[in-house]
Formats: sequence, C-alpha cells, structure tokens
Amino acid sequence: MAKISAPKGTRDFYPDEMRRRRYLEDVWRRVSLRAGFEEVDGPIFESLELYIQKAGEEIVTQLYNFEDKGGRPIAIRPEFTQSLARMVVARQAALPRPIKWFNISRCCRYERAQKGRLREFFQWNCDILGAEGPAADAECIAVAIDALQEFGLTKEQVEVRLSSRKLLSVMLAKLGLSDAAIPKVYLVLDKRGKVPADVIHHMINEIEMTEDQRKRVVDIMDMSSLDGLPSFFGDDPEVLEQLRELSQVVSLLGDDAAQFVRIDFGIVRGLAYYTGPVWEVFDKTGTLRSLCGGGRYDNLIAASGGKAMPACGFGAGDVTMGLLLDSLHAWPNDLTPRADFYVSCVQAASVSKVLPLVRRLRSLGRSAIHDLISSNIARQIKNADAMGVRYNVVIGSHKCSDDEVILGNMRTHEERTIRIQDLLKSVQDGTI
Amino acid sequence: MAKISAPKGTRDFYPDEMRRRRYLEDVWRRVSLRAGFEEVDGPIFESLELYIQKAGEEIVTQLYNFEDKGGRPIAIRPEFTQSLARMVVARQAALPRPIKWFNISRCCRYERAQKGRLREFFQWNCDILGAEGPAADAECIAVAIDALQEFGLTKEQVEVRLSSRKLLSVMLAKLGLSDAAIPKVYLVLDKRGKVPADVIHHMINEIEMTEDQRKRVVDIMDMSSLDGLPSFFGDDPEVLEQLRELSQVVSLLGDDAAQFVRIDFGIVRGLAYYTGPVWEVFDKTGTLRSLCGGGRYDNLIAASGGKAMPACGFGAGDVTMGLLLDSLHAWPNDLTPRADFYVSCVQAASVSKVLPLVRRLRSLGRSAIHDLISSNIARQIKNADAMGVRYNVVIGSHKCSDDEVILGNMRTHEERTIRIQDLLKSVQDGTI
Repeated sequence: MAKISAPKGTRDFYPDEMRRRRYLEDVWRRVSLRAGFEEVDGPIFESLELYIQKAGEEIVTQLYNFEDKGGRPIAIRPEFTQSLARMVVARQAALPRPIKWFNISRCCRYERAQKGRLREFFQWNCDILGAEGPAADAECIAVAIDALQEFGLTKEQVEVRLSSRKLLSVMLAKLGLSDAAIPKVYLVLDKRGKVPADVIHHMINEIEMTEDQRKRVVDIMDMSSLDGLPSFFGDDPEVLEQLRELSQVVSLLGDDAAQFVRIDFGIVRGLAYYTGPVWEVFDKTGTLRSLCGGGRYDNLIAASGGKAMPACGFGAGDVTMGLLLDSLHAWPNDLTPRADFYVSCVQAASVSKVLPLVRRLRSLGRSAIHDLISSNIARQIKNADAMGVRYNVVIGSHKCSDDEVILGNMRTHEERTIRIQDLLKSVQDGTI
Repeated sequence: MAKISAPKGTRDFYPDEMRRRRYLEDVWRRVSLRAGFEEVDGPIFESLELYIQKAGEEIVTQLYNFEDKGGRPIAIRPEFTQSLARMVVARQAALPRPIKWFNISRCCRYERAQKGRLREFFQWNCDILGAEGPAADAECIAVAIDALQEFGLTKEQVEVRLSSRKLLSVMLAKLGLSDAAIPKVYLVLDKRGKVPADVIHHMINEIEMTEDQRKRVVDIMDMSSLDGLPSFFGDDPEVLEQLRELSQVVSLLGDDAAQFVRIDFGIVRGLAYYTGPVWEVFDKTGTLRSLCGGGRYDNLIAASGGKAMPACGFGAGDVTMGLLLDSLHAWPNDLTPRADFYVSCVQAASVSKVLPLVRRLRSLGRSAIHDLISSNIARQIKNADAMGVRYNVVIGSHKCSDDEVILGNMRTHEERTIRIQDLLKSVQDGTI
C-alpha cells in the first residue's frame, strides 16, 4: 500500500515533540490552576453560524468548514472564544461570578502555513467574566507573566506591550482627526514594527491631517509610558479618566510585574471586539510573531445572545512559544522520563514472576519496565542502562532464594540481595 | 443575536464535567507513563485515503469527512490507530524497539448518538510494536487492569474477557465446519451477550452443520477457561500450539491480575485486522458497552505500507468508563481544587499590595486568589469560605504595620499577625 503523509500544515508529535508540547501545556495548566482558573472545554467543531455571527462571512475563507452528513454547516474551531461565549450564555444566570475559566484547545485555521503559523495549533486561553474593574485586566496580565517566568523567561527577553482601545480613541477624537483619517491611523499603528519605518512614514504622510495633528499622532505612536500624556491633553477629563484606568492596571500589577510592561499604542489588535485595555507579549529580539495577546471585550457576551457582561482574557499559542524556547535554548534540559525500575529475569522458569513484581511496583506509583522481546540478560541490562533506568531488579539469580531478588543501582553499580517484600516496603516508604 | 447550541452528539465541558474528564485522562496518562509508554499524537484530521485504505469505502458513512479549501479529501480522525500506523511507517527504521506508545485522542464519528456512544469522545490507546511474544500481550492487559484498579474497580465489578482469533479459527477448522458455516459461527459468537439467548439459539440452529458440530460449537461458546480444551481436541498439535500461546498470556499476568481475566470465545472483535489474542473489558452487571478492547494485530504495519512488524494494543473510551463510574458512584469524592490562599484587602490604599503578594505565593507553587469585583471585606471572607480556601490573608488592617498581614486559618478560625517575609518563608519551607 502507498504511504500517506500527514495533512499540510499539521504536525506529528513523536515522543520528543510530544514531551515538549506536554511541557508547554503543563506550565499553562499549572499557572492557570494556581491563579484559581477552572478548566473548561467545548467540542472540536461548532455550528458555522457561531463564527459568522461574530466575525462575518469573510471568516469562512479561513475555516475548515463543511456540511456534516445531516446537512448541518459546521466548522472545526479556529479559536475557543466563541465556544466560551456560547457556554457562558447557555448558563449565564447560574454561573457564580466572577467566572474564571481557562482552556487549552486544539484549533485549526485554513491559512497559508509559514513560520510561527500552522494550520493546526494549540492555544491557551484564560478569561475572566463578570468583573469590570482594572483588577481583572491586571490579573490576566499577571497570569501571562507568571507563565513567561515559569518558562524561565526574563524581562530582558520578553515584554508585555499595553495599550487601551478607549484611551486611544478618545485621544484621536480630541486631536480633531476626521472620521476618514481615524481608521487609517489605526491601520498605521497596527502595522508599526511589522513593516519598515519608511513605509510607516509614507503611510502617515498619506493620511489627510494638519501638520500639527500628524506630529501629535507620531508622538502618541512613539510614547512608551503614560507620563507624557497629561502635558499633551492638559486636564481633559475624558482623557484623564481613560488614562487613570490604564495607569491603574499597571499599578495593580506591582513593580515586579510592571517591569515586564511597556506602554505601546501600536497594540491595536485585529479583532473588532476589544473595548478597553489591550496587550500583546513579544520577544524583545522582535523576530517572532506575538507570543500572547489579550484585552477587555465587554461586548462579546451580549453580542452572543446573552445579557451584557464585562469580560477580559487572553490567548497564547504553542507554535510561537515553541520557536522562542528553541531560539533561546530555553527548553528544560531533559524532559525524557526515566523509569525507576527495570525488572529482568535470568532464567526462563522465573519469567512468570516478572510482570507480577512490575505490577506491584507500578501500583506503588513507580515506573517499572521489563523485557518484551526475549532479550538475554546482558542485553536487558544494557537496555536498562541506555534508558537511564535507576534500579535494575534481577529475578531468578542463583544467588537468590525464591523470595529474593538482586537490586542494582544503575548509577553507582552497587548490588545487593533483598527480599521482595522488603523491596516493596522500602519503595512504599520512599527509601528506595 | 440568536443563541446557538453545541452540535448534536457533542458535549460542553463546564468545570464539573472537565474535572471528571481530566481525572480520567490523568489516570490514563499516569498508568501509561509508569509502564514506560511514551506519549504521541497526530493531527485531528487525516487524509480520507488513510481510513479507506484500512477499512474500505463503507467507513466513509461513519466519518466527518470533507474537502479542504485546497480540494484535499480529509476526515476528522475516528480513532488513532491509522495515525499511529502512518507515524510508525514514516520512521520505521529509526525507531528503537519495542515501540511503546500511548495516546489520548479526541476522536469523532458520525454515528447515531445513544447511551455510551457520542459523536465526539476521548480515547486512550496503548500500543506495543516490534514485540511478537505473549509478553507484550500480557503487558497490554496488565496496563489496562492497572487503570481499572487505579479507578478503584475490583474483579467483582469488571472483567477482562480473553480469546484468541488464531485458536478459535484453528478449532473451528478442526471441527470440519464448512467455509460457509464458519463466518456464521463468528457472527453468533459476536452477538452472544448482546441479544437474548433464544435469538442466539435460533441463530445456531440456522447454521448448516451436524448435530455433533453444533454441540461442540455450543461447548466452545460456553467455555470460560482453557482447562477443558485438550480433552476436546486431544493432542492436536495446531490446537495445542495456539492454546499454549493463549495460556502463556494468562500465566505471565500472574495470579493477581489473572483474577480479572476470563476466557470467552465470544470476544471476536469487529475489526478485521486482529490476528492473535483479543480481549475486551466489561462491567460485570453487563449493562454497558465494552469499556476497553484490544489485541494483537500483526498485519497492520505491512498493510499501511511499512515492513511487517508484530503489534498489539488496546483502546478505551471516556464515555462508557464515565457511565460506569457514575453508576458505581466511584468518582473520587471531591475533584474540586481548593485555593491555598485568599488575599483580601481592608483599605483602598493597600489595594496595590494585593496582586504582588498573590504573585509571590503563586510563584512558590501555591494557589492564591483575590477579589476582582470590589467586594467589601466581609463579602471577600465569605467568598473565600464558600470556596473552601485554606488561609485568608488580610492586607492593610489597622492591627498591622506596613510589612505585616493577618493570616487566618479558614478551618480553625485562628488568626495571627505575621510579617510578609516570614509568611513567604514558611510557605517556601512548607510549614504553611
């Protein structure tokens, strides 16, 4: 039969790749749980309508969508947010507030496969619903930073770029830009850092506005802290209110976490639904796509058929994070699990004692393996050594009585005869 | 906007349901790892061809299959086995033997949703490739039993029904049944226990064979151990060889594990590819579908384009196992995680100290939560109590200096003032 390969843009996870994926997921899960988020999940496919409702017909070009055998239009999920909204709306009255949920989703998008972007990927989402204040925004950023630190990343390597959709729109309105100019300014802000500086310069010069307005837009674009803002807009109450909200997010984070944060009004976020603070995490070398992104999206639940409910959250993908850990050589040194025991057997008559002892060791929570391919004893011990096993247990040696085995420490090469029940007792006590 | 519901036959995993799913998956993963299996995974969809190649065109009616936007026929995976075969074949020469892989897959089948059968489910697979002897078959059964015991299930509640495709076919050939009769006998064997006894009786009477043959078939059908077989077939060497192989699987398991095992030639397994020992796990009340099933399938790798390679393995689904744990009330009492610390704040001036302390506690590996919805202090403590939090930490009390907090044990209601650095040190030492 012909060999068939994996579909384009997808990955096979052999043990090495799987251990790395599992490491990412374990960190995400651990960090979420210790911040009091509860894990949730939905189906791998949803009604196509769910995605069109949120993002319009054009989203369909990026989906793995089809009709099932009952003629229902469905799509493999491209992200978890719409499933989350659907689940919240279905039980909105009964869910205790605030809702703090996390999810680690397999998602698929029919996109051109390129560096940092695959057709199938894994995404971590944390969302807080029912909390409107900046404390929830700060909590989301804190959790994202906790994960970065758990991966061993420092503020010299990664940064959180923080903006506010509301503050930005108030500022642009105050500058008196025309309705035609404002979306063009958003576009330039969004492109900054992604295209060369002279392209940005050219784009700005193309927008119809006064020289004074242009200068101010450039100043806003280059701002990396909130300190300069008041001198800019005087004591304009609308600007000050939004400024206060964004400043509060930073001050709630505390000095330690705030060292990861830089104000950057270039963070616009493509998704139309962000309504307040928005932020993305980037590696400081600037070679990779965003590692993580989130913000406040107070309109989603109402737009999904529920009652209005404030909400914020973020998502992070496995592909870019994996590329960053690759480039920094920041994966843990050795993710390979080592078996605790290799149970080998020197004579055929004792072979039926192997699996029962292996089973006892496993039932005590320890990993234990044995020969499955009738290797001779020398080969068995060589295998155990190659696998980095800690202890070799030999059954059926002429040095032993029936209820004894030889216990060998594979590192020190010390050997001793031990009664099986004493071995099991020591394992249970944790002394072996 | 209209509310949209989850697609038919799928489930939403709210925190309660997700904790149960996570519990199943954690047991499966723990049991696999301690038996030296390595985790692998493939994409959620594969080329449609991969499934047709193995199971024929008729499989398509049970698949979620479609053409992607590049016109490629693909299908959401209905099981992991074909992805496993594809992955093994792609690197067959390089993989160390024996290959011991496990996988916990999300899978989808377009089937009529019914009790114990959904359109989306999770499946645990363990496979051993490159080992031809009965040790590998016994290892698979041992691992399945380890999981059953880890779920707290006993030999009074569940049993492994073991057969051998080879032994059965040799026996039926020895009885001199016609080529037309043999597949009908397989069908009856497979139906036994699934349809009423009188239907079975009727089916057997319909098969063309002598009364003596009929009696023997019924005897084989009713056999629950291997002891009676030699008297049946004398010392026929072909029967004895297959009998020896199956007996060895049982003897390698050892007495403890063998108590879970019963010989049952009714275990035929629908899949055409099983070539040796086959087995299924059932609950003893007999109300549920198979909990787990596996066997030897030595032809799969060659049939998938690789070099011939012996193989055996098994799969277990989350749906039936969940129903069994439901019916036996065998879920762990409380899967809800309790936060270690609730950090609350009595005065607005101290609010910016909350998240930094929460972050420190989390970075020490402990779970810590705080108020996100501006509750007053009484409400915060009530919330913490309702959530079963262990310690309440109050910041900004007039009883404390700036570097102190009040630490309250939520169970004993004891309170004391403690310096923040002493609290963190005690947490690090594990004394709090």
